[in-house]
Amino acid sequence: MKKLNVGLIGYGFMGRTHSNAFRQVNKFFSLGYEPVLKAVCARDEAKVKAFAENWGYETYETDWRKLIARPDIDLIDIATPNNSHAEIAIAAAKAGKMILCEKPLSMDGKQGAQMVKAIEKAGVPNMVWYNYRRVPAVTMAKQLIDEGRLGRIFHYRAKFLQDWTISKDLPQGGAGLWRLDVKAAGSGVTGDLLAHCIDTALWLNGSIANVSAMTETFVKERKHNLTGKIEKVGIDDACAFLARFNNGSLATFESTRYARGHKALYTFEINGEHASIAWDLHDLHRLQYFDHRDESKLRGWRSIHVTDGDQPYMKNWWVPGLQIGYEHTFIHQVADFLAGFDSQTPAHPSFRDALETQYVCDAVLKSAQTGKWEKVPKAK
Amino acid sequence: MKKLNVGLIGYGFMGRTHSNAFRQVNKFFSLGYEPVLKAVCARDEAKVKAFAENWGYETYETDWRKLIARPDIDLIDIATPNNSHAEIAIAAAKAGKMILCEKPLSMDGKQGAQMVKAIEKAGVPNMVWYNYRRVPAVTMAKQLIDEGRLGRIFHYRAKFLQDWTISKDLPQGGAGLWRLDVKAAGSGVTGDLLAHCIDTALWLNGSIANVSAMTETFVKERKHNLTGKIEKVGIDDACAFLARFNNGSLATFESTRYARGHKALYTFEINGEHASIAWDLHDLHRLQYFDHRDESKLRGWRSIHVTDGDQPYMKNWWVPGLQIGYEHTFIHQVADFLAGFDSQTPAHPSFRDALETQYVCDAVLKSAQTGKWEKVPKAK
Amino acid sequence: MKKLNVGLIGYGFMGRTHSNAFRQVNKFFSLGYEPVLKAVCARDEAKVKAFAENWGYETYETDWRKLIARPDIDLIDIATPNNSHAEIAIAAAKAGKMILCEKPLSMDGKQGAQMVKAIEKAGVPNMVWYNYRRVPAVTMAKQLIDEGRLGRIFHYRAKFLQDWTISKDLPQGGAGLWRLDVKAAGSGVTGDLLAHCIDTALWLNGSIANVSAMTETFVKERKHNLTGKIEKVGIDDACAFLARFNNGSLATFESTRYARGHKALYTFEINGEHASIAWDLHDLHRLQYFDHRDESKLRGWRSIHVTDGDQPYMKNWWVPGLQIGYEHTFIHQVADFLAGFDSQTPAHPSFRDALETQYVCDAVLKSAQTGKWEKVPKAK
Amino acid sequence: MKKLNVGLIGYGFMGRTHSNAFRQVNKFFSLGYEPVLKAVCARDEAKVKAFAENWGYETYETDWRKLIARPDIDLIDIATPNNSHAEIAIAAAKAGKMILCEKPLSMDGKQGAQMVKAIEKAGVPNMVWYNYRRVPAVTMAKQLIDEGRLGRIFHYRAKFLQDWTISKDLPQGGAGLWRLDVKAAGSGVTGDLLAHCIDTALWLNGSIANVSAMTETFVKERKHNLTGKIEKVGIDDACAFLARFNNGSLATFESTRYARGHKALYTFEINGEHASIAWDLHDLHRLQYFDHRDESKLRGWRSIHVTDGDQPYMKNWWVPGLQIGYEHTFIHQVADFLAGFDSQTPAHPSFRDALETQYVCDAVLKSAQTGKWEKVPKAK
Repeated sequence: MKKLNVGLIGYGFMGRTHSNAFRQVNKFFSLGYEPVLKAVCARDEAKVKAFAENWGYETYETDWRKLIARPDIDLIDIATPNNSHAEIAIAAAKAGKMILCEKPLSMDGKQGAQMVKAIEKAGVPNMVWYNYRRVPAVTMAKQLIDEGRLGRIFHYRAKFLQDWTISKDLPQGGAGLWRLDVKAAGSGVTGDLLAHCIDTALWLNGSIANVSAMTETFVKERKHNLTGKIEKVGIDDACAFLARFNNGSLATFESTRYARGHKALYTFEINGEHASIAWDLHDLHRLQYFDHRDESKLRGWRSIHVTDGDQPYMKNWWVPGLQIGYEHTFIHQVADFLAGFDSQTPAHPSFRDALETQYVCDAVLKSAQTGKWEKVPKAK
Repeated sequence: MKKLNVGLIGYGFMGRTHSNAFRQVNKFFSLGYEPVLKAVCARDEAKVKAFAENWGYETYETDWRKLIARPDIDLIDIATPNNSHAEIAIAAAKAGKMILCEKPLSMDGKQGAQMVKAIEKAGVPNMVWYNYRRVPAVTMAKQLIDEGRLGRIFHYRAKFLQDWTISKDLPQGGAGLWRLDVKAAGSGVTGDLLAHCIDTALWLNGSIANVSAMTETFVKERKHNLTGKIEKVGIDDACAFLARFNNGSLATFESTRYARGHKALYTFEINGEHASIAWDLHDLHRLQYFDHRDESKLRGWRSIHVTDGDQPYMKNWWVPGLQIGYEHTFIHQVADFLAGFDSQTPAHPSFRDALETQYVCDAVLKSAQTGKWEKVPKAK
Repeated sequence: MKKLNVGLIGYGFMGRTHSNAFRQVNKFFSLGYEPVLKAVCARDEAKVKAFAENWGYETYETDWRKLIARPDIDLIDIATPNNSHAEIAIAAAKAGKMILCEKPLSMDGKQGAQMVKAIEKAGVPNMVWYNYRRVPAVTMAKQLIDEGRLGRIFHYRAKFLQDWTISKDLPQGGAGLWRLDVKAAGSGVTGDLLAHCIDTALWLNGSIANVSAMTETFVKERKHNLTGKIEKVGIDDACAFLARFNNGSLATFESTRYARGHKALYTFEINGEHASIAWDLHDLHRLQYFDHRDESKLRGWRSIHVTDGDQPYMKNWWVPGLQIGYEHTFIHQVADFLAGFDSQTPAHPSFRDALETQYVCDAVLKSAQTGKWEKVPKAK
Repeated sequence: MKKLNVGLIGYGFMGRTHSNAFRQVNKFFSLGYEPVLKAVCARDEAKVKAFAENWGYETYETDWRKLIARPDIDLIDIATPNNSHAEIAIAAAKAGKMILCEKPLSMDGKQGAQMVKAIEKAGVPNMVWYNYRRVPAVTMAKQLIDEGRLGRIFHYRAKFLQDWTISKDLPQGGAGLWRLDVKAAGSGVTGDLLAHCIDTALWLNGSIANVSAMTETFVKERKHNLTGKIEKVGIDDACAFLARFNNGSLATFESTRYARGHKALYTFEINGEHASIAWDLHDLHRLQYFDHRDESKLRGWRSIHVTDGDQPYMKNWWVPGLQIGYEHTFIHQVADFLAGFDSQTPAHPSFRDALETQYVCDAVLKSAQTGKWEKVPKAK
């Protein structure tokens, strides 16, 4: 088994999910490559050292440029706030490293295009962590669509609802709260949550032609953790948009952090001529499926418990009926990335795939400002 | 359309459901017969008069013997407490009236056998109001079983859970509360709730060979509304039993009025070799169906919204997707009863069918006392 | 009890639901007025006669002008296709009749305004059949909002999904299919389905400021039943729109007849600062409720089975746990209409209330054409 | 952090879940002890070597007696078929090793009592892998009960339904199928599935007084993988029993491998005077809770998504709304076992706790044979 030396940058929520994925993947998947936790990098030495010890990283760095410069690192994994993705990725590409990057790819499409240019020039393997593609039920949805079971698609609808920022007392900025700081995040729910919805949608239903959007910032000012002052909130607290896909289907997308009662309700539903599919992150191991070709009086939405050996990824885990959870999506993504080396089939989504999502986000945010329908530029 | 003059005895909860059924049936079903609300009978003149006026009964009586004696009455409908069913039914049979009787048929099997004897001797049309057979989803379950879709049956499980008698302050006896008075009701949940479960089970899965049961009375004493005194509670508050059907399947049955959170949770599930069915009175318009012959990776419980024209009874109502409710089961039962005259196919369950349920109840209550498995005598 | 002589125009699906409501209301509600089925009117004499006989109308007419001219008619109930509402309603108003009108009120806002003008000039009692306001769970949602339980509202989302027109072979026009004929219906799902969603939304969440919409006609041509020719389809098969309410909340609305697997999935959800509410027509007797003020670790969406005596309308029906269905919403609406006479509180929604919905529909359809956000004019 | 050298015996399904738990626990829980994967033992050298390499065991053995004899092993983890638990555990106890043992503890109560005697004599830390106690939702159920929220308990019902042995072509015996071989398993669903239900029930609701049971073997003969011959099936395919707890509550228990449509439907429900709780392994991250003390019209079953930091174990994982799965229950159990050393509070269930479950199983199997109610002997 070939070793692949990983250098992780960032040790927050995503640093943990990635580290776990690297550690676990070879225990459950038979692969030709094995990630080695070589180094983790972050500015706070005490914390990064503790993180390295906990997860078993052999070394640590406090300057990401040093990490990239290290010859013993094969792969740079970017798990930092959005505003640092581009600089790190471009430097890593120049250094010839493989690159994994947290989503969203970049602060905007322009920046993302620069990253894609750099990475494609370098010709290095690359992938963006849109992990929900690897929920077994979501992967199965993709299979069903690719098998043509749904027929012509009429409708796509997705939403991602949370409720964790309703309190006016919640500050913005800094560790754990950078997602509320527009300088670090680029946008609010659009880049954080809708980007997931859009990535899945592009994968399942093809490209989006144009959009009409609205955004809202319900709490206008919050204390900033870094300055200690009350500052204007620059992110979108909520965003909804209408879209037309190039396959002729109509879509609605919505995301908010002000939907009381929902922690992480990412749902999508696709209505086709013959069949429909629905899925919900809160019960991620289930797929809802309705097939009009079923015998008429027995038609109904099937609640499929996706835990069987003939369903995506599940033969690698336990036994039928026993569910896996959120963290496994990252393990699957690493497994596919490593398997891609053997099969010469690069794992998706690539930086270029993720750039397409970025362009949709740009069009959405622009439409929210102009009040008009905006076209989505092509990323491919 | 031929007229059928109805004489209803009793004006409680069931008197209302029956009256509504008689009034509604011809508006929605095309039949050769039409029930006429000729007379209603109860002891309290002021109340029975008001009931007659409200529902449109042409006349009223305060003595049920007079009602039975009236030549203008074709059909006697018994909606009184259980301890009066036998006397009224036997008298009505002797008078040559058709008879509808509320469930349970009788206080016990012995009494029920006398009723069956009388009614069969008289040769009059008869039916017992086990209305849940006519929930469209339940009727469809019967169709699926009769079509052989389930294959060999392994398991049957049913329960009927309520929570309305948990308070110790609730009195027993008299109007609205006679179901807590063993003299009026014969038993507690066994005759009131389990009788429904047993009737459905016998219809769907055939006869029961033997049972092992336990009963409990959680609140031992309650004030009696008729005597004004604290009296011992004679009914079973809860009853559960194991059973073996003659087709080799195993069953569990349970009923209680002490299941906090459930108003009328009558559920049953049948597991067959090829397919399984489940149903729940709280969402009575849905049938859950799992078919192992579905393509492997797409197997799941189907939530069938039973509101389509090709599903039982539903073409007579509104349009697909729009649900009907509890009261409609009585309308369906009257429709089938009337249609039985035209087709010469007596509607079920007959008194004899209901006697079989009575024998199971007897065996259950006996087993709870003896602590042994008890055989169920044959009613046919 | 005072008699109220009803003259019904139209005997289709809605003619049946209204007739049933008039017949049933006094059996379950204690009121000072009683509707009398005096006459039904439609052009086909054989059919209208049969309808009259089935439902117990004393007489019938084949010309609605004659019906309006009859002095023995107190109330005109309009259950005809949309394109005849205005003419009939205006004539009935001039004749001083009370008027009930099926939804949507009119072909468009302009026509609706004329109707409102006529009816208000005449000063006659009036109401539009937006029946879903009287689903007990929906009425309870209104109560909860009025009690201030939700706090500031952030989001409203509603959809009404059907799948009955997917087949290209389905013709348009004529009996049962006039909803596909733009000349009879005015619009497609916007007036038929979204109008319901909008009416509920205005009632629960106040007025809408502006909208951005898209519509689609998936099947461009269908055979027309009246001409026998293939004709262009003029209706919208699907419509989705974004909206901003005047209370600052954001909304998404969607409707289609191309959502495979859904017969009548009308759902809405409201997210407030403290609590959220969700409802679904497919299980109309349930209300989903989440309250952030619940103890932290025990917070969850409550599935409330709205069948108890302290929940709207339910004390008039059966016993807790036993559900009612679709038809009962019409009975409740008649009950409220009649009770309004006693209490001097006109039942809602009035023609003027329904005009507001019409204005929203106009803005939606206009936005779908202009591709811009459109303001909703005020109806009050 | 102190090292704890683990010697695992058996490398099947449970060998994998335990190994994963040992590897993962310190990454997510802050503990004073760390398990070290020192050695794994099984008879097939090639396979045990491969297993050791995959999971990172430093060494392997092919004779469990040698493993126990090794001074570098602190803890023996028994993950072999049931018929070897006693011999291994008693030997390990004599060697002064800590012992973890897969459930069920033993082939029967008599054997289990010998194990308890040996282990208590040796005074070594011990625990049995009844992992479902550590599903966060189940642990929370225990908390709610201990806080007295349910009040007097009236009912307990549990079932564990599977469908994987319906085919007559499935052989018995040998790797992966020893659960169908009575010599290896001791019993069928009683020891395999009901033992889980009983363990949870004893933990949540106290001891069981007596039981009335029935068992069935639907497929009487199967090919035996070890002999190659058709042999009589000695296990119970299905088992159901009634029980009375010493707290006065009534219970039904059922388990089968012939419930088409259910892979691992372990559900329990507890009905108390004030509140009820329900849980389902198929959606293990949810707890259903009904509280009668909620405001009357707003009472409903709450669907609690147990993923928040103030819910058991969840602060150690990801963020609210993101579910964990089956494997995590084993990690929690190891975490509690290790934490018990620091806190001097031995983790449950101990061998003695598990013996109580064994006695209930014995009584159940005996009752199924005698056809009588059987008392459960006391284990404590």
